[in-house]
Amino acid sequence: MKLLLRIAYVGTRFHGFQTQPGLRTVQSVLQKAMEEFFGCPLKITGASRTDAGVHAKDFALSVEGELFESLPPEKIPLALSPILPPDLAVRSAVRVPDNFHPRYDVDYKEYEYLIHNAPIRSPFLADRAWFCPVPLDVERMNEGAAALIGKHDFSAFMAQGSAVQNTVRDLRRLEVARSGDLVTLTAAADGFLYNMVRILAGTLVAVSEGKIDPADLPAILASGDRRRAGPTLPPQGLYLCRVVYPTKKYGEI
Amino acid sequence: MKLLLRIAYVGTRFHGFQTQPGLRTVQSVLQKAMEEFFGCPLKITGASRTDAGVHAKDFALSVEGELFESLPPEKIPLALSPILPPDLAVRSAVRVPDNFHPRYDVDYKEYEYLIHNAPIRSPFLADRAWFCPVPLDVERMNEGAAALIGKHDFSAFMAQGSAVQNTVRDLRRLEVARSGDLVTLTAAADGFLYNMVRILAGTLVAVSEGKIDPADLPAILASGDRRRAGPTLPPQGLYLCRVVYPTKKYGEI
Repeated sequence: MKLLLRIAYVGTRFHGFQTQPGLRTVQSVLQKAMEEFFGCPLKITGASRTDAGVHAKDFALSVEGELFESLPPEKIPLALSPILPPDLAVRSAVRVPDNFHPRYDVDYKEYEYLIHNAPIRSPFLADRAWFCPVPLDVERMNEGAAALIGKHDFSAFMAQGSAVQNTVRDLRRLEVARSGDLVTLTAAADGFLYNMVRILAGTLVAVSEGKIDPADLPAILASGDRRRAGPTLPPQGLYLCRVVYPTKKYGEI
Repeated sequence: MKLLLRIAYVGTRFHGFQTQPGLRTVQSVLQKAMEEFFGCPLKITGASRTDAGVHAKDFALSVEGELFESLPPEKIPLALSPILPPDLAVRSAVRVPDNFHPRYDVDYKEYEYLIHNAPIRSPFLADRAWFCPVPLDVERMNEGAAALIGKHDFSAFMAQGSAVQNTVRDLRRLEVARSGDLVTLTAAADGFLYNMVRILAGTLVAVSEGKIDPADLPAILASGDRRRAGPTLPPQGLYLCRVVYPTKKYGEI
Protein backbone atom coordinates (compact mmCIF):
# COMPACT_ATOMS: atom_id res chain seq x y z
CA MET A 1 0.00 0.00 0.00
CA LYS A 2 1.31 3.41 -0.92
CA LEU A 3 0.22 6.80 0.39
CA LEU A 4 0.98 10.35 -0.63
CA LEU A 5 1.41 12.52 2.46
CA ARG A 6 1.57 16.28 2.46
CA ILE A 7 3.38 17.72 5.46
CA ALA A 8 4.39 21.12 6.86
CA TYR A 9 7.40 21.90 9.00
CA VAL A 10 9.38 24.76 10.47
CA GLY A 11 12.91 24.01 9.27
CA THR A 12 14.81 25.80 12.04
CA ARG A 13 15.51 22.79 14.25
CA PHE A 14 15.75 20.19 11.45
CA HIS A 15 18.91 19.33 9.51
CA GLY A 16 16.85 19.30 6.34
CA PHE A 17 14.40 16.68 5.12
CA GLN A 18 16.56 13.69 4.33
CA THR A 19 17.75 11.15 6.91
CA GLN A 20 21.34 11.66 8.01
CA PRO A 21 22.96 9.50 10.70
CA GLY A 22 22.86 11.13 14.13
CA LEU A 23 21.01 14.26 13.01
CA ARG A 24 17.42 15.37 13.57
CA THR A 25 15.83 15.41 10.13
CA VAL A 26 12.19 15.58 9.04
CA GLN A 27 12.33 12.16 7.40
CA SER A 28 13.83 10.42 10.44
CA VAL A 29 11.39 12.03 12.91
CA LEU A 30 8.40 11.18 10.70
CA GLN A 31 9.62 7.66 9.99
CA LYS A 32 10.15 6.89 13.69
CA ALA A 33 6.68 8.21 14.60
CA MET A 34 4.90 6.37 11.78
CA GLU A 35 6.73 3.08 12.32
CA GLU A 36 5.76 3.18 16.00
CA PHE A 37 2.16 3.96 15.09
CA PHE A 38 1.82 1.32 12.35
CA GLY A 39 4.13 -1.21 14.03
CA CYS A 40 6.02 -2.09 10.86
CA PRO A 41 8.98 -0.85 8.80
CA LEU A 42 8.04 1.83 6.27
CA LYS A 43 9.73 3.29 3.24
CA ILE A 44 9.52 7.09 2.96
CA THR A 45 10.50 8.89 -0.26
CA GLY A 46 10.45 12.69 -0.41
CA ALA A 47 9.55 14.89 -3.39
CA SER A 48 12.66 16.91 -2.74
CA ARG A 49 15.48 17.49 -0.33
CA THR A 50 15.42 20.64 1.70
CA ASP A 51 18.43 22.14 3.45
CA ALA A 52 18.78 22.81 7.16
CA GLY A 53 16.70 25.83 8.15
CA VAL A 54 14.45 25.69 5.06
CA HIS A 55 10.71 25.51 5.79
CA ALA A 56 7.86 23.69 4.09
CA LYS A 57 4.23 24.74 3.98
CA ASP A 58 3.40 21.77 1.78
CA PHE A 59 6.05 19.11 1.22
CA ALA A 60 5.03 15.86 -0.50
CA LEU A 61 6.31 12.35 0.18
CA SER A 62 5.27 8.75 -0.30
CA VAL A 63 5.01 6.12 2.40
CA GLU A 64 5.05 2.41 1.58
CA GLY A 65 4.52 -0.53 3.87
CA GLU A 66 1.93 -2.61 5.63
CA LEU A 67 -0.24 0.33 6.57
CA PHE A 68 -3.58 -0.37 8.27
CA GLU A 69 -6.00 -1.27 5.49
CA SER A 70 -8.90 -0.43 7.80
CA LEU A 71 -7.74 3.08 8.69
CA PRO A 72 -9.05 5.58 6.11
CA PRO A 73 -6.03 7.65 4.94
CA GLU A 74 -7.84 10.92 5.69
CA LYS A 75 -7.71 10.00 9.40
CA ILE A 76 -3.91 9.78 9.41
CA PRO A 77 -3.17 13.53 9.95
CA LEU A 78 -5.24 13.58 13.14
CA ALA A 79 -3.95 10.18 14.31
CA LEU A 80 -0.30 11.24 13.97
CA SER A 81 -0.76 14.73 15.41
CA PRO A 82 -0.20 13.77 19.09
CA ILE A 83 2.99 11.80 18.37
CA LEU A 84 4.68 14.36 16.13
CA PRO A 85 6.73 17.28 17.55
CA PRO A 86 5.23 20.82 17.38
CA ASP A 87 7.43 21.82 14.42
CA LEU A 88 6.07 19.07 12.13
CA ALA A 89 2.52 18.23 11.02
CA VAL A 90 0.92 15.92 8.48
CA ARG A 91 -1.63 17.95 6.51
CA SER A 92 -3.21 15.26 4.35
CA ALA A 93 -2.86 11.64 3.25
CA VAL A 94 -4.30 9.95 0.17
CA ARG A 95 -3.82 6.53 -1.38
CA VAL A 96 -1.83 6.49 -4.63
CA PRO A 97 -1.03 3.75 -7.18
CA ASP A 98 2.05 1.60 -6.49
CA ASN A 99 3.87 3.09 -9.49
CA PHE A 100 3.52 6.67 -8.17
CA HIS A 101 6.87 8.33 -7.45
CA PRO A 102 6.83 11.57 -5.42
CA ARG A 103 9.98 12.96 -7.10
CA TYR A 104 9.95 11.65 -10.69
CA ASP A 105 6.23 12.31 -11.16
CA VAL A 106 6.30 15.99 -10.11
CA ASP A 107 4.68 18.34 -12.63
CA TYR A 108 6.02 21.46 -10.92
CA LYS A 109 7.10 22.76 -7.53
CA GLU A 110 6.59 26.21 -6.10
CA TYR A 111 8.86 27.93 -3.59
CA GLU A 112 8.60 31.27 -1.83
CA TYR A 113 11.50 33.32 -0.55
CA LEU A 114 10.40 35.70 2.20
CA ILE A 115 12.30 38.92 2.89
CA HIS A 116 11.58 41.20 5.84
CA ASN A 117 12.40 44.57 4.34
CA ALA A 118 12.24 47.06 7.20
CA PRO A 119 14.64 49.28 9.16
CA ILE A 120 14.40 47.18 12.34
CA ARG A 121 14.23 43.38 12.55
CA SER A 122 11.14 41.70 14.03
CA PRO A 123 11.48 38.99 16.70
CA PHE A 124 8.47 37.26 15.14
CA LEU A 125 10.35 36.79 11.85
CA ALA A 126 13.68 35.59 13.26
CA ASP A 127 14.37 32.25 11.50
CA ARG A 128 11.23 32.79 9.37
CA ALA A 129 12.48 35.36 6.84
CA TRP A 130 15.69 36.98 5.64
CA PHE A 131 16.08 40.44 7.14
CA CYS A 132 17.10 43.14 4.66
CA PRO A 133 17.13 46.72 6.00
CA VAL A 134 17.94 48.31 2.61
CA PRO A 135 14.69 49.22 0.78
CA LEU A 136 14.12 46.84 -2.15
CA ASP A 137 12.99 48.00 -5.56
CA VAL A 138 10.33 45.41 -6.37
CA GLU A 139 9.63 46.82 -9.84
CA ARG A 140 13.27 46.47 -10.81
CA MET A 141 13.42 42.97 -9.31
CA ASN A 142 10.47 41.97 -11.48
CA GLU A 143 12.27 43.30 -14.55
CA GLY A 144 15.13 40.97 -13.68
CA ALA A 145 12.73 38.09 -12.96
CA ALA A 146 11.12 38.43 -16.39
CA ALA A 147 14.52 37.88 -18.02
CA LEU A 148 14.99 34.56 -16.18
CA ILE A 149 11.61 32.93 -16.84
CA GLY A 150 11.61 30.09 -19.37
CA LYS A 151 13.50 26.91 -20.20
CA HIS A 152 17.21 27.57 -19.70
CA ASP A 153 20.42 25.93 -18.56
CA PHE A 154 20.54 27.32 -15.02
CA SER A 155 24.16 26.26 -14.26
CA ALA A 156 24.99 29.84 -13.26
CA PHE A 157 22.27 29.54 -10.59
CA MET A 158 23.44 26.25 -9.06
CA ALA A 159 25.65 25.80 -6.00
CA GLN A 160 29.08 24.56 -7.03
CA GLY A 161 29.92 20.95 -6.26
CA SER A 162 26.54 19.59 -7.35
CA ALA A 163 26.87 16.41 -9.44
CA VAL A 164 23.60 16.75 -11.39
CA GLN A 165 23.93 15.98 -15.14
CA ASN A 166 21.05 17.89 -16.73
CA THR A 167 21.01 21.52 -15.64
CA VAL A 168 18.16 22.64 -17.89
CA ARG A 169 15.03 23.63 -15.97
CA ASP A 170 11.72 25.16 -17.02
CA LEU A 171 11.20 28.20 -14.78
CA ARG A 172 7.50 28.81 -15.31
CA ARG A 173 6.97 31.62 -12.85
CA LEU A 174 9.27 34.06 -11.07
CA GLU A 175 7.80 37.16 -9.52
CA VAL A 176 8.28 39.49 -6.61
CA ALA A 177 5.51 41.19 -4.61
CA ARG A 178 5.46 43.49 -1.61
CA SER A 179 2.91 43.51 1.19
CA GLY A 180 3.93 46.15 3.71
CA ASP A 181 7.38 45.22 5.09
CA LEU A 182 7.28 41.76 3.53
CA VAL A 183 8.70 41.09 0.09
CA THR A 184 7.92 37.64 -1.31
CA LEU A 185 9.62 36.05 -4.30
CA THR A 186 7.60 33.19 -5.83
CA ALA A 187 9.31 30.66 -8.10
CA ALA A 188 7.69 27.72 -9.89
CA ALA A 189 9.54 25.21 -12.07
CA ASP A 190 9.50 21.57 -13.13
CA GLY A 191 12.52 21.18 -10.90
CA PHE A 192 15.19 23.23 -9.16
CA LEU A 193 18.95 22.87 -9.06
CA TYR A 194 20.78 22.88 -5.75
CA ASN A 195 20.32 26.29 -4.03
CA MET A 196 18.68 27.64 -7.20
CA VAL A 197 15.86 29.58 -5.50
CA ARG A 198 18.23 31.14 -2.97
CA ILE A 199 20.59 32.19 -5.81
CA LEU A 200 17.68 33.54 -7.89
CA ALA A 201 16.60 35.57 -4.84
CA GLY A 202 20.15 36.82 -4.24
CA THR A 203 20.45 37.77 -7.91
CA LEU A 204 17.22 39.78 -7.86
CA VAL A 205 18.38 41.56 -4.67
CA ALA A 206 21.62 42.38 -6.55
CA VAL A 207 19.45 43.71 -9.40
CA SER A 208 17.55 45.88 -6.89
CA GLU A 209 20.85 47.21 -5.55
CA GLY A 210 22.05 48.07 -9.08
CA LYS A 211 24.92 45.55 -8.88
CA ILE A 212 23.45 43.50 -11.73
CA ASP A 213 21.67 45.05 -14.73
CA PRO A 214 18.50 43.16 -15.80
CA ALA A 215 19.78 43.46 -19.40
CA ASP A 216 22.85 41.36 -18.47
CA LEU A 217 20.85 38.41 -17.16
CA PRO A 218 20.59 36.56 -20.53
CA ALA A 219 24.38 36.71 -20.79
CA ILE A 220 24.78 35.53 -17.19
CA LEU A 221 22.47 32.56 -17.93
CA ALA A 222 24.41 31.79 -21.14
CA SER A 223 27.77 31.94 -19.35
CA GLY A 224 26.89 29.12 -16.94
CA ASP A 225 29.26 30.90 -14.55
CA ARG A 226 28.09 30.75 -10.93
CA ARG A 227 30.33 33.71 -10.03
CA ARG A 228 28.35 36.04 -12.30
CA ALA A 229 24.97 35.47 -10.61
CA GLY A 230 24.13 37.00 -7.22
CA PRO A 231 24.84 35.58 -3.75
CA THR A 232 23.04 32.61 -2.16
CA LEU A 233 20.60 34.07 0.36
CA PRO A 234 20.33 32.28 3.74
CA PRO A 235 17.97 29.31 4.24
CA GLN A 236 15.53 30.80 6.77
CA GLY A 237 13.67 32.80 4.08
CA LEU A 238 12.91 29.75 1.92
CA TYR A 239 9.58 27.89 1.96
CA LEU A 240 8.57 24.93 -0.20
CA CYS A 241 4.93 25.82 -0.82
CA ARG A 242 3.44 23.48 -3.41
CA VAL A 243 4.28 20.17 -5.08
CA VAL A 244 1.93 19.57 -8.00
CA TYR A 245 1.42 16.23 -9.78
CA PRO A 246 -0.13 15.84 -13.26
CA THR A 247 -3.88 15.59 -12.75
CA LYS A 248 -4.23 13.74 -16.07
CA LYS A 249 -2.22 10.87 -14.66
CA TYR A 250 -3.27 10.85 -10.99
CA GLY A 251 -6.34 13.07 -10.64
CA GLU A 252 -6.43 15.61 -7.83
CA ILE A 253 -3.91 14.38 -5.27
CA MET B 1 17.37 61.55 31.39
CA LYS B 2 14.34 59.39 30.76
CA LEU B 3 13.38 57.53 27.62
CA LEU B 4 10.23 55.71 26.56
CA LEU B 5 11.16 52.55 24.66
CA ARG B 6 8.75 50.43 22.68
CA ILE B 7 9.88 46.84 22.26
CA ALA B 8 8.67 43.60 20.68
CA TYR B 9 9.40 40.07 21.83
CA VAL B 10 8.44 36.46 21.27
CA GLY B 11 7.54 35.30 24.76
CA THR B 12 8.26 31.60 24.30
CA ARG B 13 11.75 31.55 25.78
CA PHE B 14 11.24 34.33 28.34
CA HIS B 15 9.90 33.88 31.87
CA GLY B 16 7.77 36.97 31.36
CA PHE B 17 8.82 40.62 31.35
CA GLN B 18 9.84 41.26 34.92
CA THR B 19 13.25 40.45 36.41
CA GLN B 20 13.27 37.27 38.51
CA PRO B 21 16.49 35.90 40.04
CA GLY B 22 18.08 33.18 37.92
CA LEU B 23 15.48 33.30 35.14
CA ARG B 24 15.69 34.68 31.60
CA THR B 25 13.25 37.58 31.51
CA VAL B 26 12.79 40.41 28.99
CA GLN B 27 13.69 43.07 31.55
CA SER B 28 16.91 41.36 32.65
CA VAL B 29 18.10 40.67 29.09
CA LEU B 30 17.35 44.25 28.01
CA GLN B 31 18.89 45.76 31.14
CA LYS B 32 22.13 43.80 30.74
CA ALA B 33 22.44 44.76 27.06
CA MET B 34 21.69 48.44 27.67
CA GLU B 35 23.94 48.75 30.71
CA GLU B 36 26.80 47.27 28.70
CA PHE B 37 26.08 49.65 25.82
CA PHE B 38 25.73 52.80 27.93
CA GLY B 39 28.30 51.75 30.54
CA CYS B 40 26.20 52.79 33.53
CA PRO B 41 23.46 51.39 35.78
CA LEU B 42 19.95 51.95 34.41
CA LYS B 43 16.49 51.79 35.89
CA ILE B 44 13.90 50.04 33.70
CA THR B 45 10.17 50.25 34.49
CA GLY B 46 7.66 48.33 32.39
CA ALA B 47 4.12 49.38 31.47
CA SER B 48 2.91 45.96 32.49
CA ARG B 49 3.98 42.52 33.53
CA THR B 50 3.57 39.74 31.06
CA ASP B 51 3.56 36.05 31.93
CA ALA B 52 5.91 33.39 30.60
CA GLY B 53 5.01 32.54 27.01
CA VAL B 54 3.05 35.76 26.39
CA HIS B 55 4.22 37.84 23.40
CA ALA B 56 4.45 41.57 22.80
CA LYS B 57 4.20 43.35 19.49
CA ASP B 58 4.50 46.72 21.23
CA PHE B 59 5.42 46.77 24.92
CA ALA B 60 6.31 50.13 26.53
CA LEU B 61 8.88 50.81 29.24
CA SER B 62 10.91 53.68 30.61
CA VAL B 63 14.68 53.74 30.97
CA GLU B 64 16.39 56.15 33.35
CA GLY B 65 20.08 56.80 33.84
CA GLU B 66 23.08 58.59 32.43
CA LEU B 67 22.21 57.86 28.81
CA PHE B 68 24.40 59.41 26.11
CA GLU B 69 23.15 62.97 25.67
CA SER B 70 24.79 63.09 22.26
CA LEU B 71 23.09 59.95 20.88
CA PRO B 72 19.73 60.87 19.34
CA PRO B 73 17.12 58.52 20.88
CA GLU B 74 15.87 57.48 17.42
CA LYS B 75 19.26 55.82 16.79
CA ILE B 76 18.89 53.52 19.81
CA PRO B 77 16.83 50.73 18.11
CA LEU B 78 19.51 50.24 15.46
CA ALA B 79 22.38 50.60 17.94
CA LEU B 80 20.97 47.92 20.26
CA SER B 81 19.91 45.53 17.48
CA PRO B 82 23.24 43.64 17.23
CA ILE B 83 23.52 43.09 20.99
CA LEU B 84 19.97 41.88 21.61
CA PRO B 85 18.92 38.23 21.08
CA PRO B 86 16.76 37.37 18.02
CA ASP B 87 13.58 37.10 20.11
CA LEU B 88 13.76 40.70 21.38
CA ALA B 89 13.91 44.02 19.50
CA VAL B 90 13.65 47.70 20.41
CA ARG B 91 11.20 49.31 17.98
CA SER B 92 11.47 52.96 18.99
CA ALA B 93 12.88 55.30 21.63
CA VAL B 94 11.79 58.84 22.50
CA ARG B 95 12.72 61.22 25.26
CA VAL B 96 10.00 61.79 27.89
CA PRO B 97 9.69 64.17 30.86
CA ASP B 98 11.19 62.99 34.17
CA ASN B 99 7.70 62.72 35.72
CA PHE B 100 6.47 60.28 33.03
CA HIS B 101 5.53 56.88 34.42
CA PRO B 102 5.04 54.02 31.93
CA ARG B 103 2.46 52.23 34.08
CA TYR B 104 0.54 54.93 35.99
CA ASP B 105 0.27 57.20 32.95
CA VAL B 106 -1.27 54.60 30.60
CA ASP B 107 -4.47 55.75 28.88
CA TYR B 108 -5.31 52.28 27.59
CA LYS B 109 -3.70 49.01 26.57
CA GLU B 110 -4.74 46.69 23.79
CA TYR B 111 -4.21 42.94 23.73
CA GLU B 112 -4.95 40.32 21.09
CA TYR B 113 -5.65 36.67 21.73
CA LEU B 114 -4.92 34.57 18.65
CA ILE B 115 -6.69 31.24 18.09
CA HIS B 116 -5.78 28.84 15.30
CA ASN B 117 -9.18 27.34 14.55
CA ALA B 118 -8.54 24.51 12.10
CA PRO B 119 -8.79 20.71 12.05
CA ILE B 120 -4.99 20.21 11.98
CA ARG B 121 -2.40 22.23 13.91
CA SER B 122 0.18 24.27 12.00
CA PRO B 123 3.90 24.02 12.89
CA PHE B 124 4.21 27.74 12.08
CA LEU B 125 1.73 28.62 14.85
CA ALA B 126 3.13 26.37 17.59
CA ASP B 127 3.80 28.72 20.56
CA ARG B 128 2.26 31.60 18.57
CA ALA B 129 -1.47 30.84 18.90
CA TRP B 130 -3.83 28.62 20.86
CA PHE B 131 -4.91 25.66 18.73
CA CYS B 132 -8.66 24.95 18.83
CA PRO B 133 -9.91 22.26 16.41
CA VAL B 134 -13.60 22.78 17.24
CA PRO B 135 -15.15 25.37 14.88
CA LEU B 136 -15.79 28.63 16.73
CA ASP B 137 -18.99 30.64 16.35
CA VAL B 138 -17.60 34.17 16.02
CA GLU B 139 -21.04 35.78 15.85
CA ARG B 140 -22.04 34.21 19.14
CA MET B 141 -18.69 35.15 20.70
CA ASN B 142 -19.33 38.77 19.73
CA GLU B 143 -22.75 38.61 21.38
CA GLY B 144 -20.98 37.59 24.58
CA ALA B 145 -18.30 40.25 24.11
CA ALA B 146 -20.92 43.01 23.82
CA ALA B 147 -22.26 42.04 27.27
CA LEU B 148 -18.82 42.51 28.86
CA ILE B 149 -17.84 45.90 27.42
CA GLY B 150 -17.97 48.82 29.83
CA LYS B 151 -16.83 49.78 33.33
CA HIS B 152 -17.35 46.80 35.61
CA ASP B 153 -15.89 45.01 38.59
CA PHE B 154 -14.09 42.21 36.74
CA SER B 155 -13.32 40.07 39.84
CA ALA B 156 -14.93 37.07 38.14
CA PHE B 157 -12.35 37.46 35.36
CA MET B 158 -9.27 37.62 37.58
CA ALA B 159 -6.95 34.77 38.52
CA GLN B 160 -7.39 33.82 42.15
CA GLY B 161 -4.62 34.81 44.56
CA SER B 162 -4.16 38.29 43.10
CA ALA B 163 -3.78 40.95 45.81
CA VAL B 164 -5.05 43.92 43.77
CA GLN B 165 -7.45 46.22 45.68
CA ASN B 166 -9.48 47.92 42.96
CA THR B 167 -10.95 45.38 40.55
CA VAL B 168 -12.99 47.84 38.47
CA ARG B 169 -11.73 48.21 34.90
CA ASP B 170 -13.09 50.08 31.90
CA LEU B 171 -13.21 47.54 29.06
CA ARG B 172 -13.52 49.85 26.06
CA ARG B 173 -13.34 47.31 23.29
CA LEU B 174 -13.84 43.56 23.09
CA GLU B 175 -14.43 41.96 19.73
CA VAL B 176 -13.75 38.78 17.84
CA ALA B 177 -12.94 38.52 14.13
CA ARG B 178 -12.11 35.63 11.81
CA SER B 179 -9.65 35.69 8.93
CA GLY B 180 -9.54 32.20 7.42
CA ASP B 181 -8.36 29.75 10.11
CA LEU B 182 -7.34 32.54 12.47
CA VAL B 183 -9.73 33.91 15.08
CA THR B 184 -8.51 37.05 16.86
CA LEU B 185 -10.00 38.49 20.02
CA THR B 186 -9.07 42.16 20.58
CA ALA B 187 -9.44 43.70 24.05
CA ALA B 188 -8.72 47.30 25.04
CA ALA B 189 -9.04 48.68 28.57
CA ASP B 190 -7.54 51.27 30.92
CA GLY B 191 -6.00 48.30 32.72
CA PHE B 192 -6.34 44.55 33.02
CA LEU B 193 -6.51 42.30 36.06
CA TYR B 194 -4.24 39.28 36.36
CA ASN B 195 -5.02 36.79 33.52
CA MET B 196 -8.08 38.88 32.58
CA VAL B 197 -7.65 38.68 28.78
CA ARG B 198 -7.02 34.93 28.89
CA ILE B 199 -10.14 34.46 31.04
CA LEU B 200 -12.21 36.73 28.75
CA ALA B 201 -11.03 34.62 25.78
CA GLY B 202 -11.83 31.37 27.60
CA THR B 203 -15.27 32.71 28.52
CA LEU B 204 -16.08 33.64 24.91
CA VAL B 205 -14.94 30.19 23.76
CA ALA B 206 -17.31 28.74 26.38
CA VAL B 207 -20.03 30.98 24.92
CA SER B 208 -19.25 29.62 21.43
CA GLU B 209 -19.50 26.07 22.78
CA GLY B 210 -22.89 26.82 24.36
CA LYS B 211 -21.53 26.24 27.89
CA ILE B 212 -22.21 29.85 28.85
CA ASP B 213 -25.24 31.82 27.63
CA PRO B 214 -24.45 35.42 26.63
CA ALA B 215 -27.54 36.47 28.60
CA ASP B 216 -25.90 35.12 31.79
CA LEU B 217 -22.77 37.27 31.48
CA PRO B 218 -24.13 40.29 33.43
CA ALA B 219 -24.94 37.96 36.35
CA ILE B 220 -21.50 36.33 36.11
CA LEU B 221 -19.88 39.80 36.23
CA ALA B 222 -22.08 40.77 39.20
CA SER B 223 -21.29 37.56 41.10
CA GLY B 224 -17.54 38.28 41.22
CA ASP B 225 -17.16 34.49 41.23
CA ARG B 226 -14.14 33.31 39.23
CA ARG B 227 -15.64 29.80 38.98
CA ARG B 228 -18.59 31.05 36.92
CA ALA B 229 -16.48 32.58 34.12
CA GLY B 230 -14.75 30.40 31.52
CA PRO B 231 -11.30 28.79 31.70
CA THR B 232 -7.98 30.64 31.46
CA LEU B 233 -6.65 30.01 27.95
CA PRO B 234 -2.92 29.24 27.65
CA PRO B 235 -0.33 32.06 27.33
CA GLN B 236 0.98 31.40 23.80
CA GLY B 237 -2.10 33.00 22.15
CA LEU B 238 -1.71 36.32 23.99
CA TYR B 239 -0.06 39.41 22.47
CA LEU B 240 0.31 42.85 24.06
CA CYS B 241 -0.24 45.02 21.00
CA ARG B 242 -0.53 48.66 22.04
CA VAL B 243 0.18 50.83 25.06
CA VAL B 244 -1.35 54.26 24.58
CA TYR B 245 -0.53 57.37 26.63
CA PRO B 246 -2.71 60.49 26.81
CA THR B 247 -1.68 62.74 23.93
CA LYS B 248 -3.01 65.79 25.78
CA LYS B 249 -0.37 65.24 28.46
CA TYR B 250 2.58 63.88 26.46
CA GLY B 251 1.85 64.47 22.76
CA GLU B 252 2.39 61.60 20.35
CA ILE B 253 4.81 59.26 22.11
